[in-house]
Amino acid sequence: LQVLVVGGGDGGVLREISRHTSVETIDICEIDKMVIDVSKKFFPELSIGFEDSRVHLHVGDAVEFLQRTPAGKYDAIIVDSSDPVGPALELVEKPFFETIARALRPGGVLCNMAESMWLHTHLIEDMISICRETFKGSVHYAWASVPTYPSGVIGFVLCSTEGPGVDFLNPVNPIEEVDGAGNHKRELRFYNSEMHRAAFALPNFLKREVSLLRGATVPFLVRGELM
Amino acid sequence: LQVLVVGGGDGGVLREISRHTSVETIDICEIDKMVIDVSKKFFPELSIGFEDSRVHLHVGDAVEFLQRTPAGKYDAIIVDSSDPVGPALELVEKPFFETIARALRPGGVLCNMAESMWLHTHLIEDMISICRETFKGSVHYAWASVPTYPSGVIGFVLCSTEGPGVDFLNPVNPIEEVDGAGNHKRELRFYNSEMHRAAFALPNFLKREVSLLRGATVPFLVRGELM
Repeated sequence: LQVLVVGGGDGGVLREISRHTSVETIDICEIDKMVIDVSKKFFPELSIGFEDSRVHLHVGDAVEFLQRTPAGKYDAIIVDSSDPVGPALELVEKPFFETIARALRPGGVLCNMAESMWLHTHLIEDMISICRETFKGSVHYAWASVPTYPSGVIGFVLCSTEGPGVDFLNPVNPIEEVDGAGNHKRELRFYNSEMHRAAFALPNFLKREVSLLRGATVPFLVRGELM
Repeated sequence: LQVLVVGGGDGGVLREISRHTSVETIDICEIDKMVIDVSKKFFPELSIGFEDSRVHLHVGDAVEFLQRTPAGKYDAIIVDSSDPVGPALELVEKPFFETIARALRPGGVLCNMAESMWLHTHLIEDMISICRETFKGSVHYAWASVPTYPSGVIGFVLCSTEGPGVDFLNPVNPIEEVDGAGNHKRELRFYNSEMHRAAFALPNFLKREVSLLRGATVPFLVRGELM
């Protein structure tokens, strides 16, 4: 598998991707070299992600990098960028998502950070709307508890391009079945298959305020039957 | 059903209980009348819970109230108290839980606020340990995102007394099946069956640091099969 990280200069996302032996190449395109240098100096537990031999660092603008990328090159792209204000604004606009979709193979996936469900419902609505127009596979919203982020959560938009179907809720390789993933460089302290599934459960207010999520449901077992 | 709320003087828990038509009586024992008065003055959306005709207010110490309560009186007790420091400390100690268990019918349930999984693992371990000793049914830990709380989450310990089994993960009456519950006094903005189930998913660090939760798993569907 070929994976691209946009942003992510602290190395944490690299560290997590490198748990997966199925990944052959991890490209990372970070615009600000100082983020990497500071992370290596002060956050060795994150920057350890750069030490994997599969990682190839590209310092530069991801928009330009993606325009030079052959169509269909990547299996997965993870966008771990700044908040969508100022210079990072174009990373939540339609042309950027179109460039991402072009760089993914058919049935390839994007995971993009997508703000707080408590604070940014309009922005989430916009992102999902653009993703639905751009990605012809599935589009989901998920969230996780992060105590240091405003309102204590961070969200993710997960999208797949037209092609083989992607079931985001049920990973092909659950983390517990990936050999050694639980202790690769640093033990998994948060993530497991239960937390993965729970991340897709959405509160009523989010479904109501983000009309595109209105039909979203997680097939939990209720008294032995799917609901 | 007979329900008791310990604390909860703002009225919010009363408002939520009163969505359920199966509830006949809602006793509330709040030690501080000023909490109620202030809530009625400044938080009318919460204090509306006191307006239900099934609510009976007892201003006083819940420990004394429970000691006067006939054994087996309540079907459910919800403890919505202050943080377990200073005067509220006895509300997380064993004698209090024994008093609660005595006041519950066989197979009756307790829901007790139980701090933040990010900040208070030792306290959670202590509470679960005491509850396992005191309640002979099931004991679970759950959590929910609350942006205004420290670290953005609040936890709950859910326990049942010896008697008919209680399956906390699969409520007998899912909220969507309770007539009118979704719009009773105020629409449900957060809670639904998906969020209920997701609340029981626990991160690895919590299972590791709270040894009593180590075996806790949520039976999510993975590729069509229970795991």
